[in-house]
Amino acid sequence: MIKDFEVTPWEVTGRVDYDKLIKQFGIKPMPKLPEKFQKNLLFRRKIIFAQRDFGRILDSIRDGRPFVVMTGLMPSGKFHLGHKILIDQIIFYQRLGAKIYLAVADIEAYNTRNKSMRELEETAIREYLENYIALGLKPEKCDFYFQSKRSDDWKKSNAYYKLAGMLASCATFNEFRAVYGEITPGKMVSSLFQASDMLHAQLDEFEGKMPVLVPVGIDQDPHLRIARDMSRRIKEFDFMQLSSTYHKFLPGLKGEKMSSSVEESAIFISDSPKEVKKKIWNSFTGGGGSLKEQKEKGGNPDVCRVYQYLFYLFDDDNELKVRYEKCKNGEILCGECKEYLTEKINKFLKEHRKKKETARNKIDRYL
Amino acid sequence: MIKDFEVTPWEVTGRVDYDKLIKQFGIKPMPKLPEKFQKNLLFRRKIIFAQRDFGRILDSIRDGRPFVVMTGLMPSGKFHLGHKILIDQIIFYQRLGAKIYLAVADIEAYNTRNKSMRELEETAIREYLENYIALGLKPEKCDFYFQSKRSDDWKKSNAYYKLAGMLASCATFNEFRAVYGEITPGKMVSSLFQASDMLHAQLDEFEGKMPVLVPVGIDQDPHLRIARDMSRRIKEFDFMQLSSTYHKFLPGLKGEKMSSSVEESAIFISDSPKEVKKKIWNSFTGGGGSLKEQKEKGGNPDVCRVYQYLFYLFDDDNELKVRYEKCKNGEILCGECKEYLTEKINKFLKEHRKKKETARNKIDRYL
Repeated sequence: MIKDFEVTPWEVTGRVDYDKLIKQFGIKPMPKLPEKFQKNLLFRRKIIFAQRDFGRILDSIRDGRPFVVMTGLMPSGKFHLGHKILIDQIIFYQRLGAKIYLAVADIEAYNTRNKSMRELEETAIREYLENYIALGLKPEKCDFYFQSKRSDDWKKSNAYYKLAGMLASCATFNEFRAVYGEITPGKMVSSLFQASDMLHAQLDEFEGKMPVLVPVGIDQDPHLRIARDMSRRIKEFDFMQLSSTYHKFLPGLKGEKMSSSVEESAIFISDSPKEVKKKIWNSFTGGGGSLKEQKEKGGNPDVCRVYQYLFYLFDDDNELKVRYEKCKNGEILCGECKEYLTEKINKFLKEHRKKKETARNKIDRYL
Repeated sequence: MIKDFEVTPWEVTGRVDYDKLIKQFGIKPMPKLPEKFQKNLLFRRKIIFAQRDFGRILDSIRDGRPFVVMTGLMPSGKFHLGHKILIDQIIFYQRLGAKIYLAVADIEAYNTRNKSMRELEETAIREYLENYIALGLKPEKCDFYFQSKRSDDWKKSNAYYKLAGMLASCATFNEFRAVYGEITPGKMVSSLFQASDMLHAQLDEFEGKMPVLVPVGIDQDPHLRIARDMSRRIKEFDFMQLSSTYHKFLPGLKGEKMSSSVEESAIFISDSPKEVKKKIWNSFTGGGGSLKEQKEKGGNPDVCRVYQYLFYLFDDDNELKVRYEKCKNGEILCGECKEYLTEKINKFLKEHRKKKETARNKIDRYL
């Protein structure tokens, strides 16, 4: 069988068919969501498109019962607009009352990226945490930690690492291999730490048994699958099964997935207005082969990166709809959309950088 | 090639040729030892027969400089006389001024033995630590800990677990496999914890860079080899290479290796005088086929378990020599040696059990 696309936590190749993934991964479409979810463009536009056991999170929200939302960050590369899609969800749940667990996967980064722990710490704080706070995360309602130093409470630290160690008995090499494709000791240990990141909130030393939601990009589902298996198998603890939601990728500007390591594929928070302009100008659109052709036959917004950036990142539904139809009808040209998007992004980045200055002060207080 | 014998941490089969092992494992015979080592029967009789980098431990002892002696215990099964050979070394070094690190491999036991953490803790303390103290270990000069809860100092705990996690990047699956023969996720994680047990004493949060000796049975050398490789490879820390010594096994009473899981193969600390008598009576000796034959041709003390027990466990060189020669010459019969050994062991066990009562009180104070 020829594979049209392949999604693992380590690589995304080909064009992603999300409906196919739902079947392939055994996940479920999103249920009908309460009104407050509709206000968030990620839910409203079905960018968050699938889930596992999300019902118990909705129940907790409805009944005002406590729940945890856990996410991790890999302290490598630079922060780009693709990262915003995840952290906006975390902020959304924090405002709904969730306790946030935010893990810096520095052990994982050390084992797979060949950087020093010092560099990784610097990147985690300056490149990620500062941007998260600038985007609206409240650090005071967030348990932010490094895998390499879980807590300054020894009982909590020991409990977290003990769990990671014990989880090794809950999966076989073949399972790791089936989930990851390829596996090394470093990746296997990363996977155990990740599973402990997802599960340890339910230990007595932390929150106790309760719903935990892990929102991820669809490429991260293998981590969820193995953590769920371990959660079910471990005899020493009685965990509530993990909940998860899956979002689509913000595509790369030129071709496939956005990547921190491909400069032209993404808009980075640190990009200057001129760089943003240049990147958008050179991005892949759905325009016709020529001006004449586009005016006659119309463009294809569905494959257009400019359209997708507006769709994934900016809130105005009406503007989006108008541009979509005008494009289809050949009433608007790529240049105009590119200028519009450039302006939107540069405005956002300007404001964001101001907020980042303030965030830097907050961090010094909380760390 | 047909293997005459095979030694891995998980199994010992066949009859062990220690000279062959020295070559096979790339270890070195013991150097000339100072006088105080000669007083200890384990060194004097070359039961401790090989080493790696032991010179720097001898230098530290000579110069009065600090060093660490690290050992671990697997909290499964019952304490038997074979365990005494290792712990007697630990006590010997403690009296020479070494700082002792004593790790309970409860994560390893959990991952490989299918017991609950509660049972494992109970066994570690009641079956092992109490006996160690009764044999002469001073708990107040010993850092006794569980892999599942390294310390009540959060900085120490985090440093220990961080190291274990980072070590995963310092070996490949093929290396684990070459060392262990067979490998599972649980065993691999156990190996990382063990390497951290051996190496973490040198972290700034603990003793800082200094010589660390790990005395082991020769079957444990694979753990040392992989820990030494990791120690050399890890870039974040500058460790002094591990020192190790290797001792022979106290043989099983009936055939091969003594084992906690084969009741008749070992004398357990909890055995009654009657049980001891019965086990010794049924043990394998070097006696002739018949009384007549033994008187004529003499016995073979070199393969005799009764002789070996006297050799490994009891201090009287002269008595040992006399019995050896009398046996060879057919001047003494197996029954007499068996009675003699039974008496020696039962006397030792009686005194030991008294000391264990006192030890129990000490433990309550220190844990």
